[in-house]
Amino acid sequence: MSTRDTIVAISTPPGAGGLGVVRLSGSDARSVAEGLLRFAGGVEWKPWTAALAELLDEAGNTVDQVVVTYFAAPRSYTAEDVVEIACHGSPVVLRHCVARAMHGGARPAEPGEFTLRAYLNGRIDLPQAEAVHDLIAATTLHQARIAAQQMEGSVSRAIAPLKAQLVELIALLEAGIDFAEDDVSVASSEQILGRIRPISLGLSKLVDSFRFGKLVHDGLTLAVVGRPNVGKSSLFNALLQRDRAIVTDIPGTTRDTVSEIFALEGIPVRLVDTAGIRASVDVVEKLGIERSFQAMADADITIVVIDLAREVEEEDRQLLRRAGGQGLHIVVGNKADLVADVPGDLELLPVSAKTGQGIEELRRRLITLIAPDGFASPQAGLITSVRHELLLKESLESLQRTVNAIDFGLPHEMLLLDCYAALRPLDALTGATTADDILNHIFSTFCIGK
Amino acid sequence: MSTRDTIVAISTPPGAGGLGVVRLSGSDARSVAEGLLRFAGGVEWKPWTAALAELLDEAGNTVDQVVVTYFAAPRSYTAEDVVEIACHGSPVVLRHCVARAMHGGARPAEPGEFTLRAYLNGRIDLPQAEAVHDLIAATTLHQARIAAQQMEGSVSRAIAPLKAQLVELIALLEAGIDFAEDDVSVASSEQILGRIRPISLGLSKLVDSFRFGKLVHDGLTLAVVGRPNVGKSSLFNALLQRDRAIVTDIPGTTRDTVSEIFALEGIPVRLVDTAGIRASVDVVEKLGIERSFQAMADADITIVVIDLAREVEEEDRQLLRRAGGQGLHIVVGNKADLVADVPGDLELLPVSAKTGQGIEELRRRLITLIAPDGFASPQAGLITSVRHELLLKESLESLQRTVNAIDFGLPHEMLLLDCYAALRPLDALTGATTADDILNHIFSTFCIGK
Repeated sequence: MSTRDTIVAISTPPGAGGLGVVRLSGSDARSVAEGLLRFAGGVEWKPWTAALAELLDEAGNTVDQVVVTYFAAPRSYTAEDVVEIACHGSPVVLRHCVARAMHGGARPAEPGEFTLRAYLNGRIDLPQAEAVHDLIAATTLHQARIAAQQMEGSVSRAIAPLKAQLVELIALLEAGIDFAEDDVSVASSEQILGRIRPISLGLSKLVDSFRFGKLVHDGLTLAVVGRPNVGKSSLFNALLQRDRAIVTDIPGTTRDTVSEIFALEGIPVRLVDTAGIRASVDVVEKLGIERSFQAMADADITIVVIDLAREVEEEDRQLLRRAGGQGLHIVVGNKADLVADVPGDLELLPVSAKTGQGIEELRRRLITLIAPDGFASPQAGLITSVRHELLLKESLESLQRTVNAIDFGLPHEMLLLDCYAALRPLDALTGATTADDILNHIFSTFCIGK
Repeated sequence: MSTRDTIVAISTPPGAGGLGVVRLSGSDARSVAEGLLRFAGGVEWKPWTAALAELLDEAGNTVDQVVVTYFAAPRSYTAEDVVEIACHGSPVVLRHCVARAMHGGARPAEPGEFTLRAYLNGRIDLPQAEAVHDLIAATTLHQARIAAQQMEGSVSRAIAPLKAQLVELIALLEAGIDFAEDDVSVASSEQILGRIRPISLGLSKLVDSFRFGKLVHDGLTLAVVGRPNVGKSSLFNALLQRDRAIVTDIPGTTRDTVSEIFALEGIPVRLVDTAGIRASVDVVEKLGIERSFQAMADADITIVVIDLAREVEEEDRQLLRRAGGQGLHIVVGNKADLVADVPGDLELLPVSAKTGQGIEELRRRLITLIAPDGFASPQAGLITSVRHELLLKESLESLQRTVNAIDFGLPHEMLLLDCYAALRPLDALTGATTADDILNHIFSTFCIGK
């Protein structure tokens, strides 16, 4: 571990609160802290121990009573000496604390720099560091759970055995080069293919897990379309009722008045109500249908709502045809409480937004559509990052090129190039060989103080 | 200390951040925490010690890696068992942690309830508890400094000797009653008056300190008035330049486009620029003057700006007359850089908003106006709460009634009633005899988690 300068930041969210924490990391963390604190019982830096102290201003006046916790290197968040100062959560006091620390020689931390140091100091690998960011940004508990798994190293753990097998294969082929002049193959083509197969299979499974992982990570959009007065908004509310995600604290998630976020089995779902379609004159009618079409095109899944209490009209059929040609959708017959039976010519799920009839079944069908086997697989959603998916695919492609080379009958020592090409993305994924610009890209999206 | 139920709350400000803290207090704090945590090294509740743990969901999955600190009763914030769980600052994870704690038997804390318990358990008195609130809400460092002093008990410490003297006097008078039948006065009227005098003097000083304390606590409003184009806005900016208070995090402090907060020696000053006055026709001109008058009436201090490069007009003189009749004001001659000398008939401070000339002197004069001896006195600003001021005045008035009773020649044992009336408000101030409704009023303005 190389010596780095000491950094400081407010680690808690901005604003006033009962508690606010200023974090220092680096070899001077303790001496910087000593410059701005007066300890009740004298200075005693016992690792993982909290102590009462007074935060002072330049003149030695008390500005706050604080609790100071010391984490000695390497058993700390950054693997460096870390001092956490828990103040009463006044922004002006917290800023004063940071200013005093800077005066004492600390440097204000860049966004994500504490986590970057944990990575640079080898305490965590890159997927773990990326997971910290995902955990802080989580809007559903399921997202948090997956991020927590990743933070514990689940991604690297899944990749490690595949990487080890690949390295073994490379070693075997390298050995072959040593014997190349003797014209002795150390392994048959079948043996090599037999070694590549499980690696490819493992990588494919991880790539597949991204489909669901992306859903967990990014969520999806669900459009509710239908003619006026079929009960779209009631259905919208019925779906929201139980599962509304708590997202009020996160800015920018839902500003549109006709969209809401709810959590379906931990997946954030943005529900878009295509309200405001009025069918008065033909031109406006067409405009309304166009709007519904647009919402369907933008959505990952569409719910087409039919009014069971009225005749099915050309407008309904137009929507149904479009939905059928456009991917994932569910047809719902609303107001089932008003009719004895449903029209036989349409395959639809009878529901009643009013009585709640069929809403649970609708929820189940949505889950099946979203993740046919997502929740069953133990690896479901393991890969949530586009970066990881791309690197895994790159590795897979190189392995496929190796297989092709064997089919072409190329000498085994020639396969090495492709094997190394398959290894590199795995190294990059777990951070063994990561360039600075990738690091900057990853950590610059963090909040300061993390 | 009576047994109370265990409460839980998020103590850090809302929103996502590097760190968020959930706080538990009560006799079950540890067992509730054990229900939602898995400790890396087994459960070991060592006071003032931090430990690594995993936050679990219902199914036992890890949702976050957390640092848990335990503070054993009575050496804790509430004087009860306190457990603080420092999570990664994801709102969804923090809320989950609170929900799990509630499932485990904890109750969500009311606003200020942690501090209320510290008070109810006798760890702090009422002025100290009130100071916690002021510290969190502080917008300038000086406010924080005064609040920190009060949090350490400065108010009660200042009152304690006066209260002790009053209790002594009461004891003396009570003794007099025992001897009343013997017609023996235990103390002469002079002796009693001699004992009342230092108490009254001490209380008066505290009441006086409120004038400055209120300024520190509430800040004041400073209006900049003057004819169009005299350079009001430039002066406004020149004053703001160095001392602009950092208040961006505190909602509602400054929404008006023509007002800004800046800190003058730690006192938050709301500077109001009376821009927009246009003197085109007579009616509008009058309207403009009216607006300036209104701003002057609303302000604690007015700065009247005259343009030294132009003739002094009737409009200027009108403003000056009004300012003179309306309390604290400073007359400033702007654009001093453009003229050789200033008109002799007006007493004004020549400044130049453009070059900065005279701005420091203006700042000094403002400070003198605001606090003639405020910063010099050691007790300056000690009393910042209206509640405290009222109770101190109430006590003072009862003491005055005692003095009057002595002047009337009433028997000494009759003075007791007024002495007790003087003691009661001091008790209420420090919380010895506080009714529940006062407590609720005080603590309901706290943020939750404090």
